[in-house]
Amino acid sequence: MNGAEALVATLAAGGIDTCFANPGTSEMHLVAALDRGNEIRCVLGLFEGVVTGMADGYARMTGRPAATLLHLGPGLGNGIANLHNARKARSPIVNVVGEHATFHRGFDAPLTSDIQGLARPVSHWVSTSQSAQTIGEDTAKAIAEARGYPGQISTLIVPADAAWGEGAAVAAVPPRRGPASPHTPALAEAAEILSGRVNVALMIGGSALSGPGLELAARIAAHTGARLLGPTSAARARVGVGLPVVERIPYPIALARQTLADVRHVVLVAVDEPVAFFAYPGQPSRPLPKNATVHQAVTAEEDALEGLQVLADLVEAKSTTLQLQTGMEASRPQGELDLAKLAELFAAGLPEDAILVDESITSSFVLLPRLKRAKPHDFLQLTGGAIGIGLPLATGAAVAAPGRKVFCLQADGSGMYTPQALWTQARERLDVVTVVLANCAYATLRGEFKSVGIDNPGANALTMLDLANPELQWADMARSMGVEARRVRTAEEFAAVFDAAKRQRGPFLIEAMI
Amino acid sequence: MNGAEALVATLAAGGIDTCFANPGTSEMHLVAALDRGNEIRCVLGLFEGVVTGMADGYARMTGRPAATLLHLGPGLGNGIANLHNARKARSPIVNVVGEHATFHRGFDAPLTSDIQGLARPVSHWVSTSQSAQTIGEDTAKAIAEARGYPGQISTLIVPADAAWGEGAAVAAVPPRRGPASPHTPALAEAAEILSGRVNVALMIGGSALSGPGLELAARIAAHTGARLLGPTSAARARVGVGLPVVERIPYPIALARQTLADVRHVVLVAVDEPVAFFAYPGQPSRPLPKNATVHQAVTAEEDALEGLQVLADLVEAKSTTLQLQTGMEASRPQGELDLAKLAELFAAGLPEDAILVDESITSSFVLLPRLKRAKPHDFLQLTGGAIGIGLPLATGAAVAAPGRKVFCLQADGSGMYTPQALWTQARERLDVVTVVLANCAYATLRGEFKSVGIDNPGANALTMLDLANPELQWADMARSMGVEARRVRTAEEFAAVFDAAKRQRGPFLIEAMI
Repeated sequence: MNGAEALVATLAAGGIDTCFANPGTSEMHLVAALDRGNEIRCVLGLFEGVVTGMADGYARMTGRPAATLLHLGPGLGNGIANLHNARKARSPIVNVVGEHATFHRGFDAPLTSDIQGLARPVSHWVSTSQSAQTIGEDTAKAIAEARGYPGQISTLIVPADAAWGEGAAVAAVPPRRGPASPHTPALAEAAEILSGRVNVALMIGGSALSGPGLELAARIAAHTGARLLGPTSAARARVGVGLPVVERIPYPIALARQTLADVRHVVLVAVDEPVAFFAYPGQPSRPLPKNATVHQAVTAEEDALEGLQVLADLVEAKSTTLQLQTGMEASRPQGELDLAKLAELFAAGLPEDAILVDESITSSFVLLPRLKRAKPHDFLQLTGGAIGIGLPLATGAAVAAPGRKVFCLQADGSGMYTPQALWTQARERLDVVTVVLANCAYATLRGEFKSVGIDNPGANALTMLDLANPELQWADMARSMGVEARRVRTAEEFAAVFDAAKRQRGPFLIEAMI
Repeated sequence: MNGAEALVATLAAGGIDTCFANPGTSEMHLVAALDRGNEIRCVLGLFEGVVTGMADGYARMTGRPAATLLHLGPGLGNGIANLHNARKARSPIVNVVGEHATFHRGFDAPLTSDIQGLARPVSHWVSTSQSAQTIGEDTAKAIAEARGYPGQISTLIVPADAAWGEGAAVAAVPPRRGPASPHTPALAEAAEILSGRVNVALMIGGSALSGPGLELAARIAAHTGARLLGPTSAARARVGVGLPVVERIPYPIALARQTLADVRHVVLVAVDEPVAFFAYPGQPSRPLPKNATVHQAVTAEEDALEGLQVLADLVEAKSTTLQLQTGMEASRPQGELDLAKLAELFAAGLPEDAILVDESITSSFVLLPRLKRAKPHDFLQLTGGAIGIGLPLATGAAVAAPGRKVFCLQADGSGMYTPQALWTQARERLDVVTVVLANCAYATLRGEFKSVGIDNPGANALTMLDLANPELQWADMARSMGVEARRVRTAEEFAAVFDAAKRQRGPFLIEAMI
């Protein structure tokens, strides 16, 4: 058995059933081994940012790591932005990065680079296999590290001669460990705050936003009178009518501070204290008031459900009536499409149990208040701020959840970072409906220009924020990669095309001119 | 004066007239300063791999650094692959990477990452400005480092509060230093080898491939009977009919070894010893025979022209007749297009003094023997092996050389890494004719599969090397980004469309089905 075969067999033994790949010459033995094994589904991406974003989407929907297969330092480099997002989402991923043969590395061949150096900033664990003899154990370790709760990024670098070398063996992968139990004193303190103080907020994240913890958290909040808060962006949340209302902290720092102005105590469950996305002149980094105290009841690495159960018992919150999300009134907006009309139609039409990927950026300020009134769905957001995740994330989620329809709200500027994901959607016939929000601008930056205190940007600066010259033709671009697409300009057109897209199987893109 | 203004003014004082940019929130003050200064042309790229590839193309054509403007760690990450290529091309670039404000970094905001860690593997010099007070000096240092001969990558990380802070000052940039003189003993030894031994090769790189050194090198080779060799890939070379013949070392290691089998001495001028791109089982990393000796007459950091003048004097090579590239016979291939016909038509039609960017990958084996018989032109290749440079490199070369027509031979698989460059071509109305070589496959990997000793890849493995399902529609994709385009299937169509594309101004893409 050669090293590549041992690696692939160990991946399979460790429960990895999917490999998102963009291989090159140095990974040819790995490709051959993946082919022989046949236990792992390979999904090709035409660009590594697509590959790593797909792996993130897969992990968010399954809770399990996929493997990626990347080509040396530059291939890893292309995947870094979405690995950064995955790291912030706490998604498990096992990266397998090909490297020159050990005897070749000293020659400074064209593709030689410091792969470990590139991997470290986006990985919890990095290692380079030294030979075929260690590759099985190295792979088992990579899987075990990726499974570190709630999820970590492992990067295993595989020299070509470790892959083609003989004498390798499959290694046993240690069984997955669950999360650690939360600390009793921290829970007791949190319960005391929740029960005994006013102006308390219970802020939840991680699995508490989508699992059974959500109802428990809502019950605790309703019983104690605490506000139930969630982070601005979350890897995955269960959202929609009939579900507990979780107030998300707004993105603009001024608005976040205003929203949190009355808070005196924050109890954190599986989430960190809120922090501003960016710094601004004269604004603090923490949106919480200076006199607020922070109580970490459950860390992100601990068991949120167990913690919430204990908290609910301690505050005796069992039978409270919950504040649940109300639905929306039927409306049929007409005429020229704008963001508000699109939001109404999209939210009203979103089918039950959809997977919804959101990279709508500025448009989210209008979209999100409507979306939470849609039918219950899984809502996946950009967690690390590195734009260009929407299309890959939706693609990976669709690979992970066959039989569930995936929707993607994609801003046009950020969509242009990784449009190649559409090709993979077409190739794999994935059931993804993408709505491109075509405002022809880096609209977020126009706002940010003001936020940093610049009121009168000049013509050249505005040009750097404008995507209208030339105007992107997203429907044409989608078709060029095999995805059926339509450009729509009116509410009626959007409604009709959206209905048709929902009814059919396979990828479809709607370019919504807003 | 704030830090951003001092940075921009120092860039301008240091002779930087172009900034390739993809800014975000943390760079808004820099954008504003670029706007106020008005001395620096800003060129927007929709993806950072385009931005850094454009900067490489600009540097290769001007010999001077452009600036890039990148958004935090993930923005830099997206630019890493083409920075890797630029580093291997020894192109000068000054990267300006925005960073969170110093007081914000400790809060682990979503976009927080180890920017220095990401920058180091692709940069000769990395530094983070500590405040507005140091930013002018930091910028001057970054420019000076980038100018280190022949060219280096500088990365200056700029925290937002260093950019918006007041009390900054423009710094003086030290005058550019030329290359060091080569060492006399090394030249004397090389001259002795060239004059006194048989089976000698003179291998040249760097500026010797495109400047006046080329004729000197050819004269030395012709006089001494040495073979005149060049590297497999070069950042820039002057190629075409009437120019000295430089034998390039073939990419396949077996062929390279065969080509060099008789060589006993290699004299190197401004180039490193040849090394195989990849390692293969049972093949050495060095294509030179084991009994060959290597003589580094001039290093890449030294003055190649001066070295060649001394060598020519020492071997008394002044009046030798040179071996010059012959032209091609007129031919008018007809019928279904294939690579050979395309090569004939393209080479015959390439206008004098064109700039030709080559990322044709496998197709180069057929194309290159024809291209060297075209009219004299500047020939730019992929130097670092990280695919996805062709379209950005051509775009940057066109920005650098207004008035000169740029041509780009782009393989379809690698073109899909950075197709966003087409949008910048349309926006800036750049005079670039792109020919996409649409073979619908990672054709190079099919060959590599065999090279690593795998004769029978399975169906899944072949699927990972195939781009035909779905078939990319490059002409549609180009039009979706505002670039006029045509798909052609016959030699007659190609000839007619190529002629029309050459006559008009502005970008044009020909999708050649081969």
